[in-house]
Amino acid sequence: MATPLSGFHAVVPAGGAGTRLWPLSRAGHPKFLLDLTGSGRTLLQATVDRLAPLTGEDGVVVVTGVRHADEVARQVPGLTTGPGGRLLVEPSPRDSMAAIGLAAAVLLERHGPDVVIGSFAADHVIGDTDEFHAAVREAVEAARAGYVVTIGIRATGPSTAFGYVQAGESAGVAGAPGARRASGFTEKPDEQTARAYLATGEYRWNAGMFVVLARVLLDHLDAQLPALAGGLRTIAAVWDTPERDDVLSGVWPGLTKIAIDHAIAEPVAAAGGVAMVPGEFSWDDVGDFASLAGLVPGGTLGDASAVLRVDAPDAFVVTGGDRTVSVVGLPDAVVVDTPGALLVTTRAHAQQVKAAVDAWRAQDRDDLL
Amino acid sequence: MATPLSGFHAVVPAGGAGTRLWPLSRAGHPKFLLDLTGSGRTLLQATVDRLAPLTGEDGVVVVTGVRHADEVARQVPGLTTGPGGRLLVEPSPRDSMAAIGLAAAVLLERHGPDVVIGSFAADHVIGDTDEFHAAVREAVEAARAGYVVTIGIRATGPSTAFGYVQAGESAGVAGAPGARRASGFTEKPDEQTARAYLATGEYRWNAGMFVVLARVLLDHLDAQLPALAGGLRTIAAVWDTPERDDVLSGVWPGLTKIAIDHAIAEPVAAAGGVAMVPGEFSWDDVGDFASLAGLVPGGTLGDASAVLRVDAPDAFVVTGGDRTVSVVGLPDAVVVDTPGALLVTTRAHAQQVKAAVDAWRAQDRDDLL
Repeated sequence: MATPLSGFHAVVPAGGAGTRLWPLSRAGHPKFLLDLTGSGRTLLQATVDRLAPLTGEDGVVVVTGVRHADEVARQVPGLTTGPGGRLLVEPSPRDSMAAIGLAAAVLLERHGPDVVIGSFAADHVIGDTDEFHAAVREAVEAARAGYVVTIGIRATGPSTAFGYVQAGESAGVAGAPGARRASGFTEKPDEQTARAYLATGEYRWNAGMFVVLARVLLDHLDAQLPALAGGLRTIAAVWDTPERDDVLSGVWPGLTKIAIDHAIAEPVAAAGGVAMVPGEFSWDDVGDFASLAGLVPGGTLGDASAVLRVDAPDAFVVTGGDRTVSVVGLPDAVVVDTPGALLVTTRAHAQQVKAAVDAWRAQDRDDLL
Repeated sequence: MATPLSGFHAVVPAGGAGTRLWPLSRAGHPKFLLDLTGSGRTLLQATVDRLAPLTGEDGVVVVTGVRHADEVARQVPGLTTGPGGRLLVEPSPRDSMAAIGLAAAVLLERHGPDVVIGSFAADHVIGDTDEFHAAVREAVEAARAGYVVTIGIRATGPSTAFGYVQAGESAGVAGAPGARRASGFTEKPDEQTARAYLATGEYRWNAGMFVVLARVLLDHLDAQLPALAGGLRTIAAVWDTPERDDVLSGVWPGLTKIAIDHAIAEPVAAAGGVAMVPGEFSWDDVGDFASLAGLVPGGTLGDASAVLRVDAPDAFVVTGGDRTVSVVGLPDAVVVDTPGALLVTTRAHAQQVKAAVDAWRAQDRDDLL
C-alpha cells in the first residue's frame, strides 16, 4: 500500500455521456457508472480505488451532475453532499473547467494554500497502479514547485483518438527528475502527423490528468478567465454554509462553459507554466467500442457461455442477459445487446456509433438514449 | 381465377428444418410454417393458395411429420387426417421419395389410374402466379403423355445454390409445345460450371417440382426401388381404413430413405422418361439469409420503425419485437433477433449459419434449435 501524500486531494469529474459506447452507456447510466471491463468494479469505483492510497481515505472529491449524484453516492461509500462532504453536485453541466475549478476552490477554502489537487476522469482505464502512483507522486512534487503538471502517457502507437503533449527541456524540479516543460498540446491528429510526433520522441498522449496547487490553478484562472474564477471563488466561499444553494443558483448558470485544456493547459503551456511528468502505465479513455474491445478479456462482456463465434474469433460481444448471441463470419464485429436497444457494428466503424445516437434522437427516441 | 385441371392433385411435402435460416426457422417452427416475406401468409399457406386454383379446393394434399401436423392443420383449414383426409402424417421422416410416393399411392387408390400429381415444396417463394399456373398446365399435359415432368426455372444468374436440369429435343407432346426431353440433372455446381451451363442455353434451375401420373411414378418406383414401392402400396391400400396405424407402424420405419431426385428423376431422365417444361416465373427456395434478404421489401422483417441503418443501407434485419436494432457500417449485415437467440452474420456468410447450429448442438443447446 502506498503512503498517502500530505496535502494531496484527488478531484474526479464524473460526467459525460459516452455517446460512442451507446447503447451500453446511456444518459441514465453513463460509462463511469458501469463495470465496462468485467472487473467487478465500475470505472468510477476503480478510479477512486486507484486514488485513495495516494490521498488517504478522505482525500477523493467527486464532482457530478444532479442526475447521477445518488448513484455516485451509492457506488462510493463515504461521499456526502453536506458541509465538508466530498460529493460536489453541479446544478447543470458547465464543462470541465467549472467542475474542476469548483473543487479546487472548495478544497482551497477547506485546506488552505498548500493543497495540491489532481484531476482524474472517472471513466478511464489504467493498467498498472504502481506506475500510476509513481507518476502522480512525481507530478505532486512538480506541482509544489508551481507548475501545472500533466501526466504524459507513453504512446503504444500513432493513435488518432487521443491528444498529444510535447515535452521540452527539464522542468528543473529536484523531487521530480522526469518532469519536463510542456511546450504544447495538440488535439487528435491524423495518422501521418501522429507517426511524425512519435518519431521525434518528444510526444506523449495527453490523458487530461492535471496536478496543480489549488491556488496556482485559481491564480491562472484569475488571469485567463477572471469572471469564471470569481464566480467559482464566490461559490466556494459559501459551499460549506447554508447559503450554498442560493449562491449556486445565482452564480452557476452564468459560468463560462469551457474545457480545462483550453482554459488553462494550452495558454499556460505557451507561457512555460506547464510541466509534463511521464506515465509508464497503460491507459485508455475507453472512447469507443474498438477501445473497449481491447480491454475486455475474451471479448465478451457479460455471459461468455451465451456467445458463439464461427469464423469470428475476435468478435466483441456484450450480452443482454436474455438471449444467446451467435456471430458468424465477422471477425471485426461489435454486438451490443441491451434492454430495448441492440447495436451491430464493427471496430472499424466504432466512431460512427455517435451517428446512430444522433439518428435516434432525430426520431425523438430519447427513451433509447 | 384459373380453371381447375381435371384429375390433378397437388402434393405438398412440408418438412425440412431450414437450418440455414436459424434462429428464425427452428425445429419447432420450421420455415414453411413462417411468414418469411412479410406477406401475411406463411410459406405453406402461400403454396396452398397458389395451387388451389389448379386443383380445385379439395385437391391439395399435404404430407408432414407428427411434430407439425397440428400447426399445419391450423394454418390450412379443411385439412384432416381421417379417411379421405388430405393431411398425411408421417410417423418419422423418410425423405422426399417416401413422402411424395405415399401421397401418390394414396391418391391412386382414391382416384384411380388417371390421377396426375404435382409435388411442390411447402417452403419456396414464387413471384408470378399466372406464369406458374401456365407452366403447371403444360406440365400436366406432358405428364398425361407418360412423362415424369419437371419445371425448369429460367435462371437469372449462375447460381451455385441450386441444381440444374439440361433440356434436349422436343418431348413431342401436342398439348405441351414447350416440353423438351430432360437429358440430365446436376447438383449445385461451382460458379464457372454454372456460367458454362447458362452459356449453352440448355440449362435451367431445377426447382424440384415434379408432375406425373401417379401410376407412372409408382411404376418407375417398382422398377427402381421395388421394396420401397411395395411398402408404399401396402400402406396406401389401408390408408383410409382402420388398419392404417397398424400397417404404418409395421412398414414405414423400413422404407428406404432417399430423395425423389435420386430415386426417380435422375435414372428416369437417363432413360429418356423425363420432360422439362419451362417456368418463366421468379422462384427461390429461400435456402439461406442471403436469399431471404432478396425477397423482403425494405430489408426488414418485422417492425421497420425499430430498425436504424447508418452506412448500412442494405442491411437485412429481422426484429424480435422487444428492442430496436441499430446497424452501423455493415452494408452486408444480416441481423436476426429472436426470443432466446440473436444471430449476426453477413449475406456472404449466409451458408455458414449451419455451422452455428451445429456448434450449439455440440454444446447440447437443443433448446435453441
